[in-house]
Amino acid sequence: MKFTVKQIATLLGGEVAGNDTLAITGLAKIEEGKPGDISFLSNLKYEPFLYTTQASAVIVDRSFQPKKPVLSSLIFVENSYSAFTQLLEEYYKQLSFAKAGVEQPSYVGEGCQIGDQIYRGAFSYIGQNCRIGRNVKIHPHAYVGNNVCIGDNTIIHPGARILDDCVIGKSCVIHPNAVIGSEGFGFAPQPDGTYKTIPQLGNVILEDFVNVGSNTTIDCATMGSTIIRKGAKLDNLIQIGHNVDIGENTVIAAQTGISGSTKLGQNCVIAGQVGFAGHLTIANGTKVGAQSGVGKNVYEEGTSLNSSPAFGLKESMRSLAIFRKLPALEQRLTNLEKKNAK
Amino acid sequence: MKFTVKQIATLLGGEVAGNDTLAITGLAKIEEGKPGDISFLSNLKYEPFLYTTQASAVIVDRSFQPKKPVLSSLIFVENSYSAFTQLLEEYYKQLSFAKAGVEQPSYVGEGCQIGDQIYRGAFSYIGQNCRIGRNVKIHPHAYVGNNVCIGDNTIIHPGARILDDCVIGKSCVIHPNAVIGSEGFGFAPQPDGTYKTIPQLGNVILEDFVNVGSNTTIDCATMGSTIIRKGAKLDNLIQIGHNVDIGENTVIAAQTGISGSTKLGQNCVIAGQVGFAGHLTIANGTKVGAQSGVGKNVYEEGTSLNSSPAFGLKESMRSLAIFRKLPALEQRLTNLEKKNAK
Amino acid sequence: MKFTVKQIATLLGGEVAGNDTLAITGLAKIEEGKPGDISFLSNLKYEPFLYTTQASAVIVDRSFQPKKPVLSSLIFVENSYSAFTQLLEEYYKQLSFAKAGVEQPSYVGEGCQIGDQIYRGAFSYIGQNCRIGRNVKIHPHAYVGNNVCIGDNTIIHPGARILDDCVIGKSCVIHPNAVIGSEGFGFAPQPDGTYKTIPQLGNVILEDFVNVGSNTTIDCATMGSTIIRKGAKLDNLIQIGHNVDIGENTVIAAQTGISGSTKLGQNCVIAGQVGFAGHLTIANGTKVGAQSGVGKNVYEEGTSLNSSPAFGLKESMRSLAIFRKLPALEQRLTNLEKKNAK
Repeated sequence: MKFTVKQIATLLGGEVAGNDTLAITGLAKIEEGKPGDISFLSNLKYEPFLYTTQASAVIVDRSFQPKKPVLSSLIFVENSYSAFTQLLEEYYKQLSFAKAGVEQPSYVGEGCQIGDQIYRGAFSYIGQNCRIGRNVKIHPHAYVGNNVCIGDNTIIHPGARILDDCVIGKSCVIHPNAVIGSEGFGFAPQPDGTYKTIPQLGNVILEDFVNVGSNTTIDCATMGSTIIRKGAKLDNLIQIGHNVDIGENTVIAAQTGISGSTKLGQNCVIAGQVGFAGHLTIANGTKVGAQSGVGKNVYEEGTSLNSSPAFGLKESMRSLAIFRKLPALEQRLTNLEKKNAK
Repeated sequence: MKFTVKQIATLLGGEVAGNDTLAITGLAKIEEGKPGDISFLSNLKYEPFLYTTQASAVIVDRSFQPKKPVLSSLIFVENSYSAFTQLLEEYYKQLSFAKAGVEQPSYVGEGCQIGDQIYRGAFSYIGQNCRIGRNVKIHPHAYVGNNVCIGDNTIIHPGARILDDCVIGKSCVIHPNAVIGSEGFGFAPQPDGTYKTIPQLGNVILEDFVNVGSNTTIDCATMGSTIIRKGAKLDNLIQIGHNVDIGENTVIAAQTGISGSTKLGQNCVIAGQVGFAGHLTIANGTKVGAQSGVGKNVYEEGTSLNSSPAFGLKESMRSLAIFRKLPALEQRLTNLEKKNAK
Repeated sequence: MKFTVKQIATLLGGEVAGNDTLAITGLAKIEEGKPGDISFLSNLKYEPFLYTTQASAVIVDRSFQPKKPVLSSLIFVENSYSAFTQLLEEYYKQLSFAKAGVEQPSYVGEGCQIGDQIYRGAFSYIGQNCRIGRNVKIHPHAYVGNNVCIGDNTIIHPGARILDDCVIGKSCVIHPNAVIGSEGFGFAPQPDGTYKTIPQLGNVILEDFVNVGSNTTIDCATMGSTIIRKGAKLDNLIQIGHNVDIGENTVIAAQTGISGSTKLGQNCVIAGQVGFAGHLTIANGTKVGAQSGVGKNVYEEGTSLNSSPAFGLKESMRSLAIFRKLPALEQRLTNLEKKNAK
């Protein structure tokens, strides 16, 4: 990031008080601002920091009037908080798509179509017959197998693995060391106690705007597709089994596992370390508390579940409250028994 | 995959009705078949799809007689389901071992012996003094440290890490980004509150036909070996601590963790997100339910455990059923107390 | 490792009985010793192995007198156990730092300062403007982003990913496929049910002597830093959310997850598969049992917690004991009810 205070003020539609030629190279909280940083003041609880901050510039509300001298340049805008957020997003977007071109050595197989504004990092690998959209960023050590499609503006971070035949939508982000399309866990028990591998020949489809966290694993379908639908967000270290179907805009926190063939609805919110059994259907808008274990279908939209095995959130809170006082409850029972024994 | 209908019929010992020169390039469910696909009809519930499918060929039982015109070529066999499975397995085997040769750049250290029909993908790394069998497939970005042995027909997927001195058997599959032989977690507390690293100098031994899932980690032994025995199957994101010993044909589902020095018997079935404490001995044929926490030895073969901490499956189901109605149980107790207080 | 028995005796300040010119190339338990190995005898329960071991040399206490002929050379020292441990540590240190130099191909961006005694493995990647200390070991396939600082004597194992702007202290060990500094999981819900990415622009700071296990993920801060303080030890497959702060000498076992902005104190001991909710403050010296779920602040130092949701360890043990006999407890209640109904 390298802008002048004036350039940022223009971007935000604000007016500058102070030196508008200063170079801005970073963003910071007002209490941590250093020369070169821009910060903001919205909650007046933080006003004292305005008079001591080392930040080169601070974004403030148009209605704000300093009570003491300020060393930083000020940028006056309608809403300082949303202006700062706008700046963050612009900066983040620039950072995410800054890289372009090809670093060597890198590998591309035969028959690939690759769009413009591509970044292919050193030691990245793209197999045969892939179709890669425009403005795609394939970072160092990323692996893309054969016959893979990747939509425009998608970012594949270092060490992510996308196996043969997978389809990745537009504007997806695949974080480092995630594995998409590895073989599902399917083994048929044999009479002698050994297991025979069940061929896993399907793929994984990620629709647009999907986020896959670091070290998350999404298995390919046995046949057909494991599907993560539009706008779904998966955190780190999640396991998605073969033939799972995750609905649009469903959000799943870290270390959750979803067993094979389970179908989650849209706009579900799943906390961390949750487990789902296989072959379930979970209604739209279902919410599941951390460390819960879901073993049954959920038919009603907007259901809230908790505990392992999971049941209604409110009911589980009541049961858990009594669980903590079980020793006292047993004592009450013993007292009654004594009384009745007389 | 590229065969004619006739070639497939010959492979399966079947007879063709229809065009036997059509090219088959894929396998599909009958309801999803496209031109170029072969499918099968076994369960007659799916018969209506036979008359509408776009698949180029469909495998059917010899006893089957179509009730309407069929556009696809038909292959008549004794048992359509097992014939299709046979086809799947043949195709899967071909796919898995299709690659051969060496892509560049790739790295091999001094003193290695490498068998024929090897595949070494671009950016794969093999350290010094390794012995690699025949028909081994080392995919791009895979890492093999020094003094590693790998048996025939083993597949090391992209980004898998096999550290120094490990021994991998024949016909194993190591999935992407799995880590085998990294240092165990051993730290000795010091009087000043810091921790001193306990050297981890052992290795990991995988016997034949072992499967290690994506992003699974298997730590090397402190001294001696962490052992995964013949035919054991490990799913994704599993943690295996140092000096653990997993018995033959034991199957472990995703996100389970096994602490150091625990020994699992043969033919155990461990569900997902289970935890085992360290230094346990678990009898052959033990079954453990999802999210359970096993803290004690299991002496009796074929035991079924559940819950955290784990106890007998049946007993735990009864306790869990009452857990859900604890508020009602407390109310009953309160009612009795009131009655007795009179 | 390659020393003579005499060299080892000199290192340990011991005296040799037997051939002191034998070459020692490995360490082993006395019952598993092979020619070329050195072993030790401390607990006399193992004395019978002394007379049968194949080890070339055995370290024994000065006070020890063999009762039968011994084939191995003996090294007499004050304390055989601590001498052997000293040898282990020396060997381990040599192994860990044995590699030096640069393997090709490897990648270094512009503007980097790199200290001496570096090891850069084949296919390792270092971005722009990094400062790498002396005696740092960057193994094959490791990724170091832009503007990263790494202190002296730190080891980055194969496939570890250290993203832009992270700061890694001295004498840290980052195990294979760990991910440090990937984007935190932050999404703002929009009125139409979709989610907007919240820019994650902070970094991760690892202080000195930090251990990060294989496939563990540590997210960067939204702004500012996620911090893992001096001497903290993280096992495999752990998730650390954005803006988390882990205190000095805190030890965390495998598969535990810590949600965003939670602050753990010093010298905590966290078992495996534990979950922490976000925005918590946990006192110094807190101990948490395996599979627990911590949802509340912990104010008192040295607290022991257990269960999910977590409460006092002792209380939870009592409740869990009664949980197992809930069916009997309900039966007792039913009996009383019948008695009272008469």
